[in-house]
Amino acid sequence: MLKNFFEPRSVAIIGASRNPKKIGHVIFRNFIEGSFKGKVYPINPNTRELLGQKCYPTVLSVKDRIDLAVICVQSPIVPGIIEQCGKKGIKACIIISGGFREIGNTELENQCIHIAKKYGIRILGPNCMGIFSPVSGVDTLFLPRYKVERPKKGNIAFISQSGALGSVMLDWMAMKGYKLSYFVSYGNAADVDETELLEYLSNTKTTRVICAYIEGVKNGRKFYNVLRKVSRKLPVIILKGGRTQEGTNAIHSHTGSLAGTSEIYTAAFKQANVIEAKTLEDLFDFARILSTQPKPKGNKIQIITNGGGFGILMADAVISKGMKLAEMSKKGLRRLKDAMPPYVVLRNPMDLTGDATTERYRIAIESAISDKNVDMIIVISLLQTPLLTTDIVDVISELGRKGKKPTIFVALGGRFTSLLKKTLEDSGIPTFSYPERAAESLKVLYEYYRKRG
Amino acid sequence: MLKNFFEPRSVAIIGASRNPKKIGHVIFRNFIEGSFKGKVYPINPNTRELLGQKCYPTVLSVKDRIDLAVICVQSPIVPGIIEQCGKKGIKACIIISGGFREIGNTELENQCIHIAKKYGIRILGPNCMGIFSPVSGVDTLFLPRYKVERPKKGNIAFISQSGALGSVMLDWMAMKGYKLSYFVSYGNAADVDETELLEYLSNTKTTRVICAYIEGVKNGRKFYNVLRKVSRKLPVIILKGGRTQEGTNAIHSHTGSLAGTSEIYTAAFKQANVIEAKTLEDLFDFARILSTQPKPKGNKIQIITNGGGFGILMADAVISKGMKLAEMSKKGLRRLKDAMPPYVVLRNPMDLTGDATTERYRIAIESAISDKNVDMIIVISLLQTPLLTTDIVDVISELGRKGKKPTIFVALGGRFTSLLKKTLEDSGIPTFSYPERAAESLKVLYEYYRKRG
Repeated sequence: MLKNFFEPRSVAIIGASRNPKKIGHVIFRNFIEGSFKGKVYPINPNTRELLGQKCYPTVLSVKDRIDLAVICVQSPIVPGIIEQCGKKGIKACIIISGGFREIGNTELENQCIHIAKKYGIRILGPNCMGIFSPVSGVDTLFLPRYKVERPKKGNIAFISQSGALGSVMLDWMAMKGYKLSYFVSYGNAADVDETELLEYLSNTKTTRVICAYIEGVKNGRKFYNVLRKVSRKLPVIILKGGRTQEGTNAIHSHTGSLAGTSEIYTAAFKQANVIEAKTLEDLFDFARILSTQPKPKGNKIQIITNGGGFGILMADAVISKGMKLAEMSKKGLRRLKDAMPPYVVLRNPMDLTGDATTERYRIAIESAISDKNVDMIIVISLLQTPLLTTDIVDVISELGRKGKKPTIFVALGGRFTSLLKKTLEDSGIPTFSYPERAAESLKVLYEYYRKRG
Repeated sequence: MLKNFFEPRSVAIIGASRNPKKIGHVIFRNFIEGSFKGKVYPINPNTRELLGQKCYPTVLSVKDRIDLAVICVQSPIVPGIIEQCGKKGIKACIIISGGFREIGNTELENQCIHIAKKYGIRILGPNCMGIFSPVSGVDTLFLPRYKVERPKKGNIAFISQSGALGSVMLDWMAMKGYKLSYFVSYGNAADVDETELLEYLSNTKTTRVICAYIEGVKNGRKFYNVLRKVSRKLPVIILKGGRTQEGTNAIHSHTGSLAGTSEIYTAAFKQANVIEAKTLEDLFDFARILSTQPKPKGNKIQIITNGGGFGILMADAVISKGMKLAEMSKKGLRRLKDAMPPYVVLRNPMDLTGDATTERYRIAIESAISDKNVDMIIVISLLQTPLLTTDIVDVISELGRKGKKPTIFVALGGRFTSLLKKTLEDSGIPTFSYPERAAESLKVLYEYYRKRG
């Protein structure tokens, strides 16, 4: 049961330390200062008290039940620690420590797994960052929050074979206002692997989309079968490192995975209706739209803008990506004509012009929502124009929620624009800076549901 | 002479107003509160004093010489205003006001041009945002600075047919720390057009790269000839709105330009060694690298990273874009081996690993600079790692300046990372968030100089 990793009620931090530079210190602090609601036991034979809490010499001296042990001691003593965990009846261990197979110590890694099997313990890692979840409050990332900000609670799960890459993505997500259910870095995958994680996360209540960065998988067939099954239930988006021979060569010195050829992965992803991200940007652009927006009826898009130039670039992008511009019904257009000033351009892109107010946007968006010829809506707004007020954010998020048609927001600008976009993200409207990114993401949404049926 | 527009010593703001919501108020305020060093005369027959300065009824009541008039009165009275400017001996007028050809008032626009010709006045606009320049302090943008931040002084010039699009780009550039020499929005281009602007800006001292967003040009042959000439001197990057039929249709309702087919533009750009941007993102990614980095000797790139996953994605991106990974000389590698811990991966990507210090980066970058097999350098750094200190920014900018090899920086992260990247931008090192954007920009740099010879 992987639940002990993701939703433990009690956690032991083995190697918790007084030294703030030590990993064991940072992780213990993350647990007690974060949103974790369960019990946390610092384990360290040389310390009696840590950050105001009683410290235990071993897990065996803790009386209560422990669901999860986070191990951050030096690699040679890890086998002994697992033995103790086994005796205590702990069923899940995250080994943060490195110094195993990734530097040639395969023997030591095997020894750990052997002991774990004996006691029925599941192992995540070694040589990993472990888990961060705003849902359960688990946070084994050994990077302090002032260096790596943590995203808020949302419904995107993210699995990363590279812990470093994963953690910078979290920092970036937090800044952008993108939200997360679970993050997991699984390192050497000596026991729990990407396939099992994928399957487990697909069954968590809060997760609606799974993102993954992988360099290689151990058991391709098993992975493929799970992918097929999971992606019928929810969208899975994968970025495969090593799409070129040169990238693949670099994998050997990184995680030592058997990378396999890029073509095989691409074919398998396609077959399983897994969305292949080509870039890091893709990964979360696609995830944000798939985790918040409903299934579109078709690929006809209405663009609503207050800047002509941006509308033109958006039309170019929609067509270049193979999508279509919607033609609103005559009845709808007649009604709009009555409600709008004469210089508003009632076509697609619909240009509400530079003096557009929030009210003009409301009318335009409502008519696109109720028009049967429109499948998806792109709202562009240059928020710097004089007559637009910040309540446009409320109108877009309200109509976006009610509308039951995929609705996204595109705007470019500075601090003020970024702030309003973050608010929209928070209310479940995906935001984009560039027309091409917006169009590509809508296409991915459309294609995923078209294939899934 | 367009110099009166860009480097005036004295400016009259015709239509300057007490009402802070009026365009004439915002523009006058921009001049007196900004970095403009010359004299500014507010012109308004109904006001005696404005923001503490004496207000004049007409330009004729100003005794001193006036180089530039900025006109922001209602369109019907613009011809009379130009007549007065002529009598005063003013040789350059920016007509900010709309209400001319773009809404069918071709007659009124022609009348203005007729009067201007009579007096030898050059006209920018009408229906435009005019000019912003941190070099000369001219700022006719009618958007207050708290809504649209202004970029700092740099060497990228930016011409935009769409004023709205241009101004949001400025706001965005300021946030990112990207720098600018001149911005110009030319609206209806009744007199001064994109071709003349391009040629003029290419001769300004501070400009090293010209960016342009255009929807159509009036005289294609003239434009092409100037493009050819200018792009031999400095890089020109153009984003053409209306690359698809649907985008072109939208142009008719926007600027009413004759858009021409996208293929003709693409062919002409290629022929003239103009860099065609496909997206807004391209425009300034390419501009930043071309305005700061020297001509590369070849296309062999050395990647230096402290994160294996990021290195892999970077290698994938370099190869996908048709560039090459450098193979450092044996001598250089031997020297590096002596200077580095044994677990550092001395290949390409060179992985300095998660405990890399600034000093380890210095050694790696210095060896890449001095290695004859390396033409360009990509430094990746996950700035969140525990042992890295902020002086890495100083090391990269110092070596980047001295190195005489194109050197760029790639990092992803949150607020802390963004801050350090902004510092690097400030010191002339282009920064990127995504491997693909970095690789594509280096390719553009390489190709531009390869074609130019």
